[in-house]
Amino acid sequence: MSKKILLDVDTGVDDALAIAYAVASPKIDLLAVTTSYGMAPVDYSYRNTVKVLESLNDATPVYRGSEKPFQRIREYHGKIHGNDGLGETLGDVKEKINTEIDAVDFMIELVKTYREELTIVTTGPLTNLATAIKKAPEIMGLVGRIVTMGGAVATPGNVNKFAEANISIDPEAAELVFKSDLPITLVGLDVTRKTLLTQKDINNWKDKNTDAGDFFATFTQYYLDAYAKMHPYLKGCALHDPLAVGVAMNPKIVKTVPMHITVDLEGDALGRTVEDIHRKEGSNPSTLVSLQVDSEAFMTDFYKNMNNILSSSKSVAERV
Amino acid sequence: MSKKILLDVDTGVDDALAIAYAVASPKIDLLAVTTSYGMAPVDYSYRNTVKVLESLNDATPVYRGSEKPFQRIREYHGKIHGNDGLGETLGDVKEKINTEIDAVDFMIELVKTYREELTIVTTGPLTNLATAIKKAPEIMGLVGRIVTMGGAVATPGNVNKFAEANISIDPEAAELVFKSDLPITLVGLDVTRKTLLTQKDINNWKDKNTDAGDFFATFTQYYLDAYAKMHPYLKGCALHDPLAVGVAMNPKIVKTVPMHITVDLEGDALGRTVEDIHRKEGSNPSTLVSLQVDSEAFMTDFYKNMNNILSSSKSVAERV
Repeated sequence: MSKKILLDVDTGVDDALAIAYAVASPKIDLLAVTTSYGMAPVDYSYRNTVKVLESLNDATPVYRGSEKPFQRIREYHGKIHGNDGLGETLGDVKEKINTEIDAVDFMIELVKTYREELTIVTTGPLTNLATAIKKAPEIMGLVGRIVTMGGAVATPGNVNKFAEANISIDPEAAELVFKSDLPITLVGLDVTRKTLLTQKDINNWKDKNTDAGDFFATFTQYYLDAYAKMHPYLKGCALHDPLAVGVAMNPKIVKTVPMHITVDLEGDALGRTVEDIHRKEGSNPSTLVSLQVDSEAFMTDFYKNMNNILSSSKSVAERV
Repeated sequence: MSKKILLDVDTGVDDALAIAYAVASPKIDLLAVTTSYGMAPVDYSYRNTVKVLESLNDATPVYRGSEKPFQRIREYHGKIHGNDGLGETLGDVKEKINTEIDAVDFMIELVKTYREELTIVTTGPLTNLATAIKKAPEIMGLVGRIVTMGGAVATPGNVNKFAEANISIDPEAAELVFKSDLPITLVGLDVTRKTLLTQKDINNWKDKNTDAGDFFATFTQYYLDAYAKMHPYLKGCALHDPLAVGVAMNPKIVKTVPMHITVDLEGDALGRTVEDIHRKEGSNPSTLVSLQVDSEAFMTDFYKNMNNILSSSKSVAERV
């Protein structure tokens, strides 16, 4: 039986890869995609998500969600994902977009409908999920699992030496989520920095001579080039968001440790995810922190599915 | 077969408990104790170690080692362990002490003698071990295992929110040790903060009416009271150093993750232990970081052995 998944994204290059992976995998039943601000404003995330799904000839519904963090100001720089969030492939969004149903309301309804069968995979800031919890706390006892790309528990951050981007963009939302009793699997930099896409992989996609292969290769190239500048020691770009999808599908590819997690909400370590030593001893922490990953198993499955879906789109030649 | 152990300490209340535990356990063959500065100057650590062993009627040899960190200045405050390092039970050390053989030289010789049969348990700053590595790098390929009480990998520090005391006292020595190829098991605050001694346990020792029971209860009370002031949420004092001995004896009481560890050597996170993301991918990290502990199994064995050894010393009444 395929796994019912709601993907909550801020598309973003690696969100786009995560979406494609989820659409491609026969083990996943992608029910919908909810969007929020994050790497770019929410109208961009929404537009990017729609365009990515279109390029894959997929009709999964997309919902527009949160516009900004609980308390912080979000400033966009476009350095890693481009100003449009997708490697400067799609340009500016000219009009404000509204979906009939708000992402948060849709998320709540979906949890109530599918309950423990539903896995929510978040690949952006936790604003949508935290808002859903505030609005309908009863969902906490219902949902099957949350797989969250975010945090850096035993490893340095990526926005500074302590904090990872998704968490530090809206630390108050993240803290609310970690303090809830949700069954969370945290897929942070501890593991995602060990799943790396390289130039060869992008070349493979380009060589398919399909619309989608071209599109994906172009925006991923932007991301790879940014990584080469900012994190040269990695020799590739991290598949943060796709790994969260991989873990939702096959939890065994990571080894986890149960922990109470808290987020630093002030000071020099703002946005740091760390063990909460004030939460009561002997209780069963509901957050499973991923600390080791079977990168090879994940990458093999990821490339297989990506190859399939990028091959099956229209060829560039046919498009004319 | 009992395990051959060299204990490298800076005695210290919980070092004293670790020494007693090692002496008491039939599963351990305590070959010697090497000392360094740490919680108090080295002459105090040496004197305290000798007095602790004497109180247990034990003749394990003790060696005096490093006096100061590689580069840093060590200042003593006595807040947690007392100015004498042992809960104000022993007072000032009046004369400079010298042992015939230096702790570092002894450590090197012991590794060369027992090789893979030897486990070195360190419960203080890593100065002695780092000096041994510099002086005789060949020991790195010989020694069986190093079990190090130190670090805070996924949890907040105890000297500040990032760093643990043993590492931050001599971060350069720690970095040298982590960068070596030694097979290290790191027993840090991630696990030691989950093994807590309480007032009831101290009362039990006091009620034995033995010299050693009295001595141990008195200095441990000082430590427990300091914890009650500084870390009230813990509701006990951490058995940092005894847990390292417990792990040396029975590695299965902790769950570990292999990691490359590095130490922050500058900035606000000086002394932080964190994953080294610059060390090469695909290599096998030789440091096993303890992240979960079977506290109950450890505490049961610790109390059993402590009860035995503290009961068997002279009774207070007999002493007259």
